[in-house]
Formats: sequence, C-alpha cells, structure tokens
Amino acid sequence: MTILGEMIIGQQCVRGTAGEAFGFNPATRANLEPGFGQATGDDVERACALAGQAFDPYRALPLEQRARFLEAIAEQILAVGPELIERAMLETGLPQARLEGERMRTVTQLRLFAKVVRDGYFMDATVDSALPDRTPPRPDLRLRKIGLGPVVVFGASNFPLAFSVAGGDTASALAAGCPVVVKAHAAHPGTSELVGRAVQRAAKESGVPEGVFSMLYGDGRTVGQQLVAHPAIKAVGFTGSRQGGTALMRTAAGRSEPIPVYAEMSSVNPVFLLPAALQAGGAGLAQGFVDSLTLGVGQFCTNPGLLFALEGADLDAFVKAASEALAGKGAGTMLTAGIHEAYNTGVAKFGQVEGLQLVAQGGEQGTGCAARAALYVCDADTYLGNAALEDEVFGPAAVLVRFKDADQLLKAAEALHGQLTVTVHAQAQDHGVAGALLPILERKAGRVLFNGFPTGVEVAHAMVHGGPFPATSDSRTTSVGASAIDRFLRPVCYQNVPANLLPEALRDENPLGLARLQDGTLQAGGKA
Amino acid sequence: MTILGEMIIGQQCVRGTAGEAFGFNPATRANLEPGFGQATGDDVERACALAGQAFDPYRALPLEQRARFLEAIAEQILAVGPELIERAMLETGLPQARLEGERMRTVTQLRLFAKVVRDGYFMDATVDSALPDRTPPRPDLRLRKIGLGPVVVFGASNFPLAFSVAGGDTASALAAGCPVVVKAHAAHPGTSELVGRAVQRAAKESGVPEGVFSMLYGDGRTVGQQLVAHPAIKAVGFTGSRQGGTALMRTAAGRSEPIPVYAEMSSVNPVFLLPAALQAGGAGLAQGFVDSLTLGVGQFCTNPGLLFALEGADLDAFVKAASEALAGKGAGTMLTAGIHEAYNTGVAKFGQVEGLQLVAQGGEQGTGCAARAALYVCDADTYLGNAALEDEVFGPAAVLVRFKDADQLLKAAEALHGQLTVTVHAQAQDHGVAGALLPILERKAGRVLFNGFPTGVEVAHAMVHGGPFPATSDSRTTSVGASAIDRFLRPVCYQNVPANLLPEALRDENPLGLARLQDGTLQAGGKA
Repeated sequence: MTILGEMIIGQQCVRGTAGEAFGFNPATRANLEPGFGQATGDDVERACALAGQAFDPYRALPLEQRARFLEAIAEQILAVGPELIERAMLETGLPQARLEGERMRTVTQLRLFAKVVRDGYFMDATVDSALPDRTPPRPDLRLRKIGLGPVVVFGASNFPLAFSVAGGDTASALAAGCPVVVKAHAAHPGTSELVGRAVQRAAKESGVPEGVFSMLYGDGRTVGQQLVAHPAIKAVGFTGSRQGGTALMRTAAGRSEPIPVYAEMSSVNPVFLLPAALQAGGAGLAQGFVDSLTLGVGQFCTNPGLLFALEGADLDAFVKAASEALAGKGAGTMLTAGIHEAYNTGVAKFGQVEGLQLVAQGGEQGTGCAARAALYVCDADTYLGNAALEDEVFGPAAVLVRFKDADQLLKAAEALHGQLTVTVHAQAQDHGVAGALLPILERKAGRVLFNGFPTGVEVAHAMVHGGPFPATSDSRTTSVGASAIDRFLRPVCYQNVPANLLPEALRDENPLGLARLQDGTLQAGGKA
Repeated sequence: MTILGEMIIGQQCVRGTAGEAFGFNPATRANLEPGFGQATGDDVERACALAGQAFDPYRALPLEQRARFLEAIAEQILAVGPELIERAMLETGLPQARLEGERMRTVTQLRLFAKVVRDGYFMDATVDSALPDRTPPRPDLRLRKIGLGPVVVFGASNFPLAFSVAGGDTASALAAGCPVVVKAHAAHPGTSELVGRAVQRAAKESGVPEGVFSMLYGDGRTVGQQLVAHPAIKAVGFTGSRQGGTALMRTAAGRSEPIPVYAEMSSVNPVFLLPAALQAGGAGLAQGFVDSLTLGVGQFCTNPGLLFALEGADLDAFVKAASEALAGKGAGTMLTAGIHEAYNTGVAKFGQVEGLQLVAQGGEQGTGCAARAALYVCDADTYLGNAALEDEVFGPAAVLVRFKDADQLLKAAEALHGQLTVTVHAQAQDHGVAGALLPILERKAGRVLFNGFPTGVEVAHAMVHGGPFPATSDSRTTSVGASAIDRFLRPVCYQNVPANLLPEALRDENPLGLARLQDGTLQAGGKA
C-alpha cells in the first residue's frame, strides 16, 4: 500500500488543492513524504452533503449489517499490517509496542461497538400500551433512540489510532447510525490515510451508503471550523486542547441550529495520597506514580499531574523515592514540535512560581522533541494562591502539594475544577477521610479510582472518560466505553403509529429480541 | 391560606425588596393584590448558595426518602384546595376544569417521578467485574449516574401548575437528586406562592435539606440571568419563547463553566393530511383539528399551527368544514396581555403575506385579552417563499398549505425546522407516502403521531416532548415523561473502590435490587 496524500470522500480518493502539508518526524525534526493536499471549501461541502444523504439509508440498515461494518473496519485496519505501525512510529515518535497495543485497542473498541449495536440496549426501547378505556384514553406510545445525524470527528494527536480516524468517536458515532466526517490530525496524516482507506474498503465491502465515511486534511481554524458550521453536521467529537475545544464550542453554539460538541480537553487528574496509604505504599507507590507520570512521555489525558498529601515523614520518603525513580527515566520524544514547545513553556512557568520547588527531573533533554520529566513540590498556600497550578501542562510534569491536615485537603478538593479522573490512595485507616472525599470527588470527575493510577483507560461498559468542564465540554457523557454511543442519540416517540410502519425495535412481537421498558417494567429481552 | 407576596428561600419566607410586581387578571385587565416583592442579587445568592450546600446531603438520602418527598409535594399541593384553582383562574384566565385537570397532571407527574426514583433505572447501574488474570489485568469498574447539581427552573406561563413551580422540570430535577431554585413566572405569582409554600412544607415534613427548594420572583433579564450565571447552578430548565430561551443559552454557554440549558421554545407542529385520510375523515377530521387548534386558546406548545395536504375536492371539503367549525368557536381569554398582543401582531403579519388567504375566523374579539381564532390557506409556492410562515404564532391560528403532489409534500417536510411533534393522518392507502415521510419526520420532531392531534401530551415512560432546534435547545432530551430525569444526570465510574465505600446501587449484593448491566448483560433486577 502506498500513501498518496489523498483524502477520502465517500468512495473517492481526492487530492486536496488548498495547499500541501507534510508529516513530521518529531525524533529527527524532518518532514516526511509525501505531501498531503489540504481540503478546499468544496471538499468540505461534498463530504458533508454526502454524509447528509447517507444518514437515512445508513440508519435504516439492519443492525446486524451495521455491526458487521464496524467489524469489517477492525479487520481492514489489521490487514494494513506493519506499514501502519511503521508510519505511525515515524509520525508520532511513539514506540512500536505502544502502537501495536493501541491498534489492538482500536480494534477492540470497534468490536465492542459491534456488540453494543447487536445488543440494542442503546435504543432504550420503551412501550406504553394504549389504555382505550381510561378517561381520557391513553394512546399507544413507543420510544426508541435514533442517531443525531452526521458527526464531525477531530482526530487526536496523542492517540493516532484509538482516538483518530477510526477511533472511539468514529466507532461510537457509526454505531449510533451516524455518518462520520473525520478531520485528520495534522500530526499523523499518513497514518490517517492508511486507516481512512481501511474504513473506505470496509464501507464498500459492507454495502453501507457511500457518504457514511469521509476524511479530510486541513487546519482546525479553517477546515475544522467549516465542518462544524456545516448545516448537515449535527454533532462534533473532539479530543485536544482547551483552546481548540472551546473554539469549536463557540462555533457550534453560534450556528443557526446549535449542535452538541463533545470536546475532551484538559485535566490534571489529582491523586490523593492518604496517610496510611503513604506509609504502607513505600517506594513501590512512588515507582507506580512515576511510571504513570512518564508513560507515553506523559501525553495522556489521564496523566497524573497533581498530587495532594499530608506533610510528614512518610511524604518526605515518598518524594525521595519518587525523585530517585524519576531520575531513572530517560527523556522521551513528544508527539509534535508544538506539544514539545508547549511542555517546555509550561515547565518554564512552573520555574517562576515562588514557593514551587523543583525536586526531581528525568534524564537530560535528548535530541529532537525529547522532553525531560519533572516533579515539583509546594505547600498548600502556594498551591491555593496560584490558580495556574491547576492548569494542565501536557507532558511528564507533576506538582505535589503538601497539606497540613485533612480539613485543608478537603477544602482543596472542593476547589478543584472538573477532571477526567481523581485518584485516592487509601488503606482501611484512611477510609474516614476517603468517605468524606468521595461525595466531593464525584462532583469533580468522571472517574474516581482507588489505589491505582489514572493512566490506562479500560474500554468497558462501566467506563466513564468524561467529567465536568474544563475536563470536557459536556459532563453528561463519556468518550470511552460502551456508553459513548449515547452522545450521538436522541429519543423519538411514536404515537399510534400503524404496526406496519413501526420500526422493528418497537413492534409488538419484538423481532429484535430487545430489552424494553414495557409499561414501566424493564424486560431484559433475548433474541426471538 | 393567605398569599403574602413572599418568596421561598429554603425554610424561610422572604419579602423581596427590589421593587414590587402584581398579578394581572387577563379577563378584566386589572392588577391583582397583593404586590410581590422582587428578588435582589442577595436573594439570588442566598438561594443558590443554599442549593449548593444541599446537593450532597440531598443526593445522599435513601431513594425511598427522595420518592416520599416527591409524593409529599403532590399531597401538599392537593391540600391547598380550591384556593389554588381560584387564584390560578384569576391570574391566567384558564377555566376551572382545565386547571383542575392540570393540577391532577402535576400530581401525576410527581408520583411518576417517585416511581422512577424507586425503580432506579435512571442510574444506569453497570458493573464490569475485575479480570485479574487478563494481561493487563482489568480493574473492577462500576458506573452509576448522579445529579448534575442545583437546577434553575423557569416557570412557564401556559402551564401555571404542570410546568411551573412544582411542574415537570422541578419534579424531574428533584428526582435526579438535584436541588431546585425556581424563578416564578410573573404571570401567576400568587399561584406560584401557594405551590411554593406547599413544596416548602413537603420539604420540612420529609426531612430533606433546607436548600433543596427555593423560589424567587423577578424579571428574566435580571433575576433570571443572575440565576443562570451563578456558579452553584449546574443546569437550567425553561419553557417559553425562543427569544427568552436563546438568551439563557447564550448566558449558560458564556459562563466560565458552561452548563446545559433545556429550553422548550417554539414549534408549529405540522399536520400532514394524506389523501385517503382526508377523504375518509370528512367533517369529523375538520372538527378534531379545530378542537385541537383552539384548545386552551391555542396556548399549547403542541398546538397544530401548520397543515400540509394535497389539493383537490377532499381538501376543499375539509377547509369548508374546518371553517364552519372555527366560526363556532368563541373568543377565549389569553394568559397575559403580552401573549395577547404578540398573537394579534402575528395574525396581522399573516394578513400582509401575499397569497395567504384568511378563510375562517372564530367568534368576535371579546373583552380583555380575548383572542379570535383564524385559519389561513396558501399554495406551496407562497409557503415555500415565506420562511416566516413556519415561525410560531402562539395562539389559535393555523396555516394550511395546498401541495400539488406527494413529491412536493416530501420536499416541504425535508425543509421543516425542528418541531416538538409532527402528525400524519393516513389510511392504509396512504402508507406508501407515510412510509416515505417517516424517516424525514423522525429527523424533524421528538414525537411522530398518527391519526390524532398533537395537543394532549401524555405523561408516560415512552413520551418525548422535545425535538431539534428551535423546538428545543437540546434534541437529546424530553421535558415530559419519565426520561425527563436523564437531563439532570451524569455518569460516574468507580474503579477499584473498596466495597464499604461504594454507593449502595453498585454493591455486589445489589441491596436496592436495581436493574444492572452486569459484565455486558442486562439483568432486570427486583428488590432484594
């Protein structure tokens, strides 16, 4: 397979004519061939119009066909073989094992959503029988959820496979019955083309309508904004910076028909180290933290960038052990020159905060876009007096705050912004404080975890990768796990609709064997 | 019981000091005693702060206590007795039977949400067991939904009981575990005070935290905006004009922490009269339409303001019968002077549209704020050339559009804005066209109904009272029916949380007997 620098518009491969952009090797700081033609306004129009036309026929297909399409995408991605991993390594600086793992995660996500489609729970099928003898009579009422319409997905820089062209947002939108137009991330255009062509082949072999999938190259401020503003588009999935996410939110809110934006933006993922856990954890706890902090050069949304603990000898020992562990971590290549520069700027700002002490660093700055991990420590007053210490510095840097007592810790928890995750390390003796923290943390984060670290987001039914603003633009949802499909659905009620016109999901005989809420009682279903 | 002109802030009754406003009798155009003291910024602050403090203790209460609180509100409203109906009649011009029916609907809603709370389906409880032997091991993951936080509810003018102080938005928010601050509608302040005190008594007798309910008087542009901007507030429920709703959407989107706004705004509720139905329906169909159009002086969100049909003798007969039926409808008193004036302005604008013909009117203009029903007819070109004909004129006026063929009808359906409802009248011979219409109508409306009229929104599990913009601000939700609770919830994932710290809903032994998604399979539950 050869990377041609072309975009995907339905079943066509199209070279954009609005200039050319290149992939970039962050390890060598060299551009990568070929050039990628950037989308014009006409390309945006064609992709969106095709998506709009595809919506009704796509959502009308049998669920089984929709599920098989998702599985076919997974198979086609695997069929690309080593070329995909090799190109992604060049474009992102990520190591082979990580990218192979991420490919498996991408495939797992697609297969999970195939199961979600077949299970059909997502439709929330509900039937309230007519009550003709009631005064006034109650009509026959039935509800199912349908897709919102075409979705724009912005590829994320830090997951070139699992949150990019055929990543979680695309998989969940397609599962919901929504066509997808991807704006490929400029940091991995070749990887994007290989995956885009895999999706295109899967669409063809699955017999889904042509406009169900398109993929364009272009700048977020031009092509990205045009896509979000297009009338055919009904929702947006985005993973990236707070600045980028809030810009899309403004555009979406300013449309003549406002649409939802699911932007996953920034989080420092606070970790509470409670006293008995700190004592019991010893050097292993410190090593676990440093491993999580530096995993993937700290380029995870769930990177633990803020630690809260009570001052004392156990904390001193933790800081010492963490410092030693950190010193053993070499500098790692970051994804892009921009991310690398932003990291260095963020760390430099930490250096100017009075009272914030740099206690440990990772190995020396390497070549290319290599970043040096860093651990800072401060007291509660310094933290509480510097709101910027809660802003995310994307990369392997963390701030540890020493508190005087549990009361001060609880107040700091209450002052937190919205987060993707909050972690508590607690032994049984800590459960009093942990129990007091929990109702606060539930309000602050989409996921509360104990005695672990927040990196490593499981793809499961019970996962929530979301949280209050600014972690995301919409705390009511998740972008990882089976519930991610809910973002792209809306309920429709069918009142006295003749049986032959009812959707299969709502027919009396329940041909799909769906779980349904029947006259107020949940019936678990089972295939007919 | 005496109406004192006081607001409710937790368990206190407070007289606002930012000026005074009076109820207004739209039948006599006279002010009603007493004056109602309007909220100051301090009142807003106190109500919101109290709501914020109440959130954690309220949501921590047993579900049974939350359900009994909702039932206690219903009982306290009934206990107010005839005074409530009498005052509401004076303030709204609505007749006794309608208000008694609306009170029953309000009580039914509260009781439905008590059932919703007890059933616990709303929590979407989900358990994914740990897989310690997998590589890498999967942690224990559990999900439940919790409330968003304090909710501001704006009372609606047209449902002084069922969508006001203790109406659907309040009931669903309280059911979700969210404290509520109501901004009472200026059109029925006395009714609001009586209901507000009933809720206050119910809160006291149920032992829920004080700040769970407050109610303020004030202007939407001042007090309303202050409430929506307050940091303690996490969501907004609104039923009213498009102008008012979009103003709140802008404020909510512009906050440092944006919050969701559920605004139910404007809809003309198109009715498709397909040929065989038109032929079979005869004068009864016309009478049914006119009854729906003039019900409650047309002051329903689901009022049928737009009819689409194919030209021909059957349509001529329908128009003739509808005109005769309309002539028999007397002028009815509208809710407020403002609504009355807006109706007359809207009808006057219809009079200036070239090609739009006034074919029938109701009885003569009466005294006070009485409104005269009106039916207009035009051809497809006139309709398609005047975008304003799809704008809602709140009241008993409708536009009937004559199309040449089914193809033209389908195109007009495709061009519709978002609607709360779309109605199809169809006989078996019409099912070809109806089947082609359905996928379009699903995209346009929250509820699609056959062979009836859209007024009369059943409070049920399968009801959707929502729809794409501008019908509402958020098509993903409903404001009527059991699913309305979903608006005020967000998911939280608990990872490896120790058993003794887990919420009851997620404990292994399932003490609440909840339906749960256990390792990907739905288990219907049942009380332990």
